[in-house]
This record gives sequence, structure tokens and C-alpha cells, in this order.
Amino acid sequence: MQAGHRTWVFDQQPVIVSTGTVGGPFEAQGPLANDFDMLHEDLWLGEDSYEKAHRLLFEQACQKALEKGQRQKEQVQFVLGGDLINQITPTSLATRTLGAPYLGLFSACATSMEGLALGAMIINAGGADYVIAGASSHNAAVEKQFRYPTEYGGQKPPTSQWTITGAGAALLGKEGSGPRVTSATIGRVIDMGLTDPFNMGGAMAPAAVDTIEAHLKERGVDPSYYDLIVTGDLGRIGHSVSMDLFKKNGTAIEESQYKDCGIMIYDESQPVYSGGSGPGCSAAVAYGHLLNRMKKGELKRMLVVATGALLSPLTFQQGESIPCIAHAVSIEAESE
Amino acid sequence: MQAGHRTWVFDQQPVIVSTGTVGGPFEAQGPLANDFDMLHEDLWLGEDSYEKAHRLLFEQACQKALEKGQRQKEQVQFVLGGDLINQITPTSLATRTLGAPYLGLFSACATSMEGLALGAMIINAGGADYVIAGASSHNAAVEKQFRYPTEYGGQKPPTSQWTITGAGAALLGKEGSGPRVTSATIGRVIDMGLTDPFNMGGAMAPAAVDTIEAHLKERGVDPSYYDLIVTGDLGRIGHSVSMDLFKKNGTAIEESQYKDCGIMIYDESQPVYSGGSGPGCSAAVAYGHLLNRMKKGELKRMLVVATGALLSPLTFQQGESIPCIAHAVSIEAESE
Repeated sequence: MQAGHRTWVFDQQPVIVSTGTVGGPFEAQGPLANDFDMLHEDLWLGEDSYEKAHRLLFEQACQKALEKGQRQKEQVQFVLGGDLINQITPTSLATRTLGAPYLGLFSACATSMEGLALGAMIINAGGADYVIAGASSHNAAVEKQFRYPTEYGGQKPPTSQWTITGAGAALLGKEGSGPRVTSATIGRVIDMGLTDPFNMGGAMAPAAVDTIEAHLKERGVDPSYYDLIVTGDLGRIGHSVSMDLFKKNGTAIEESQYKDCGIMIYDESQPVYSGGSGPGCSAAVAYGHLLNRMKKGELKRMLVVATGALLSPLTFQQGESIPCIAHAVSIEAESE
Repeated sequence: MQAGHRTWVFDQQPVIVSTGTVGGPFEAQGPLANDFDMLHEDLWLGEDSYEKAHRLLFEQACQKALEKGQRQKEQVQFVLGGDLINQITPTSLATRTLGAPYLGLFSACATSMEGLALGAMIINAGGADYVIAGASSHNAAVEKQFRYPTEYGGQKPPTSQWTITGAGAALLGKEGSGPRVTSATIGRVIDMGLTDPFNMGGAMAPAAVDTIEAHLKERGVDPSYYDLIVTGDLGRIGHSVSMDLFKKNGTAIEESQYKDCGIMIYDESQPVYSGGSGPGCSAAVAYGHLLNRMKKGELKRMLVVATGALLSPLTFQQGESIPCIAHAVSIEAESE
């Protein structure tokens, strides 16, 4: 394996054998509805708490990935995942159901690509034949914990974002056919001193830029190497801030090749303020819509840059600014 | 690298170049006081909140490791760590100070060995020359979050445990002299249906047994291979439950070679109920006291089995039982 300071290039190119994506009612109304394997009509999923519904989202995404990949859960050597709920209990409880050895992760909404990066590292090194990497979020569970119960009807500024209800899981394998995980760049904590939890996109944008620029430099490629560079959940404001930063730094990324999962997942008519967010956002969009586009031949190479705000309600109350991070993983279509 | 279903044997044997350990006032009164690099006289560490003091514990442990290893923070390619506080903010904020790329982890009190296992995996695979793996906990910050503010003076049953105030960090390197990380076994979520958060040791014991037995089997060694098999924080009750399980399963582990960091860290006269706990417990005891014993030649091979209870106050309130996990890492003295 080649390695830069914080970039791994996987010579064994682990394969994304299959993926599973699950969404909620709001995601079912969005433009990517057809890319989900499973959509739920309500937020409860038949459970008696939002957190239990959250757990089920992740369980179902993993099960769908196994089903589609025609693999048994006993073949999964490690599950790498996490979520935003305190002590990442939805993911831990889902992993209890799956029964596989478990590496719990936390990078807030950047957890999806932390898991894919580490999962690919393990497979590439010969540490497993199969792993599952995934992430999930549940709008009502997250709102209740970080802000107010949704029933309060608290108003939000236009800079805020909408946590998606959804999950995405990728079954990674040593061999087989499918898109390849070719490299990963791990993020540093970047904190520009912003303190407004209703503008996380703006706070996260510099972390995304830092990781993308480090990736291009350490991997030694131009932005044009990728058909698509897609951030996790910068939303409209963060997306625009990051474009400004690229221009300022002279990084030649074109508007046409640079997108955000949080913008893509909802229609402009949906009341999601600046866009979608949550660990499930980048996971569901990358493992659903974007890999579907790759399978259709519309994308050959993409860099998925999941972005995370590592704050908590307590750090906000204690006057801390928002520490942010972004982890990037490149996925490339199988060569013909 | 050789790999079992959930065991990695590291052919490159990453080196523990140096470690840093930090403790609080209660740890300073314990029998391992001399093994800490730094001890604090009060819980505040000069900060204005327990959470900020918690962050500082981890920062100082990392800085001590760098100092003792005579390495610069710029050489650290990845920090792998986590803690028990919601959204692991003390670790994330400490990593902001360090400036290194960051992989946030959560396995509750098993986080220490999750980090050492993944850090060794990265070094072994050629993904870095240096990483830091560590974990920390702060008694008052954790009590406040999981139970009641300590000022309330809430009474506890004798089965409960005392979260340590402390941190341990290991600087792992590709080359150099020092103890070697030779293998790791990742835990599954084991849940025997116990629901009492004041008896976590009892709940975690079956997870420790599951991981230790899997480790011995997959690595193909007898318990006698190790001078010491040490669990993270089972405490007196969990320790005794796990011994019973070994006997029942016919696993030949001797009382004399099987210890618990949570029992070792405090004196029997200290009012810690069943013993110490917290992610900092196994980290500080393994990276301080136990590695000191290895340096003195008293230990040649040890298996550190960090144990974690993956519950939250909310899962308890929602009637969930306690999902537990244990991750094991073997550390062996440099051969002569």
C-alpha cells in the first residue's frame, strides 16, 4: 500500500460487492426516491421510539446489502459504523442483531467515510474477506437530542439543515466484481471559530476543502481526475463557501463536477432550509444514487467527502466553537 | 498479515515507542500512583468545566507520549481515540489542539483497545509511520452525564464502579525499540439480558470471556502463552463472574495470570465499590503500570482485554438490556 501523510492508496482495491439503502417518508418525496432499496411511510418503522426506529434503519440497510450481495451475515467479519445519537446506541444495538464483530466509530456526519476508509484498510491489508461499513441518522431522534422535540415546532433560520432519516451500508469484499475503493484521505479537526449550530454547513466547509486539497496533493491527481467530487452535507451555504475557498486557493474544481449529497437528496420545494444532513445522508446518497450512476456508466471515478461537525449541545452551551472534520474516499468503476 | 475470523496477527509487530498517562486525585491515592507520568491534585485541572478538564487529560497524555518518545506532533499521522462523553467531544477537542488527522472511535470503555488494534493495523499495513492511540475518562464529567452530578451525593450499590479520572496514550511506530503489538481480536456485541446499570461488570463479563476464548482459539495459543491476561474494568464482581465462565467452558486460565485494571488501580480501602471503570482505566493501567512491568522484565507477554458497556441513559430508560463488547490486543516484550 502506498501512503501519503494522511492518504492511503489501496493496491488491492477492495470491492463494493453490494449496498443497502433505507429512507424515511421525507426522503421518499425527494428526487432520489427511486435509488433507495427501502422507503418507510412513517418515522416510527413500527417501533415505539424514534431511537429504536433509528436502530432498525441501520439493521435493514445491512440486511439489504447482504441480500443483494447474496452473502450470509456469518461471512461479515467486521461491522464499522456509527451515528449521532449519544453513545451511538442505534448502531451498537443494530450490530447486536447482526452478531458480527463491531468497530464503533464517531465522526458525526463524516462517520460514513471513516468507516469505508477503515473497512477498505482492513480488507486491503488482508485482515478480512468481508466487512460492512455504514452510517445512519433519524430526523426526529436527532432533533430531539440536539435541539428540541419536533413537536415543539421550533423555528429555524435558513442556514440550518434537515437531518435525513436514512441509512446506507456497503458490503466490502476482497474479491468479486463491482466498484473499487481505491484510496482514502483522513481529515484533521478544522475549527474556524464559528459557533452557530444553525450554520453547520458554513462551519464544515473549510474542513471539506482541507481534506479535498490534501487528497489531490497526496494522491498526485488533478481535480479533473474525478468525474464527481461530492461532499456529505455542506448544504447550499457550505457548498458555496467551499467553492469560494477553492477559488481563493487556486484549486481548479469546476461547479459541474462538485456536488453535495445534502443538496441532492431533497427537492428545492421541500422545506429543508440549506439542505439535508446527518451521517445517513452521505451514506444513503453515495451507496444508493451515486453507485447506481456508476453502474450505469455515468460516473467512472468519484471522491466522496463526508463532512462532520464534532460538536455537542454541551460544547455549544460551554461556548466552544464548532470543530469540524471531513474524510474522503475515492470509488472507481471496475476497469473493463 | 495472518487473519482469523476476527483476529489479526501483525507480522510487522508495530512498536509502542512511548506512552503517556495522566491521573486525577483519587488515582494519586491508589497503589499505581507511581506509574502515572502526571497526577492532578484536583478534578478541575485549572479549567472551568469537568468536560474541559477531561479534554486536557487526553491532551496531556498525548503530549507526554510525544515528549517521552522524542517525537514531534507533526510526525503523528493519525490519532485514534474516544471517550464516554456524548459525541466524544473531549477527544475531538483534544485532537483539534494536536492538529493530527483523527479517527474518532466509540466502544465505551473498550475504546482503548479498539484504538490500539486499529492503530496497529494501520502501521502494520504501511498506512503510517506513527499513530497515537488512546482513551480517557473523567469521573465527575461521566457521573454527571450517566447518573447524577456528584454533588447530589447519590448512594450506590456495592456492585457499581468508580469511573477513573485519567488518560492513557500510546505512540505507535513502524520501527524502533519497545514492546510490540503482536495481535488483536475484535469483540462482538454480547448481551445476556442484564439491565442493571449499577452492575456493568457482571454485564460485561460474558463479552470479555467471548473475546478471550476467540483470541486463544484463532491465534492458536494456550492461556499459558500469556504471563498476564488483563481485563479493562470488570471490577470484582465481573472478574469473578468471568472466572466462573472460564471454568464452566473449560478454559484453563489461572487466577494468578488473570487480573483486572479496574481492581488494580485502587486500593481496597478506597470507596470504589466493585472497582474502577471508564475508557481511561485500561488505557492508563496498560500504558503505565503494565508496560513498566514489561520494561522491568516482569512480564513478557500480555493480553489486554478492554471491556465496554454500550448502553446510554436513554437505552436504559427505554428498557433495553446492556449490550457489551470487549476488544483484546496482545503486547509482547521485544525479543532479546
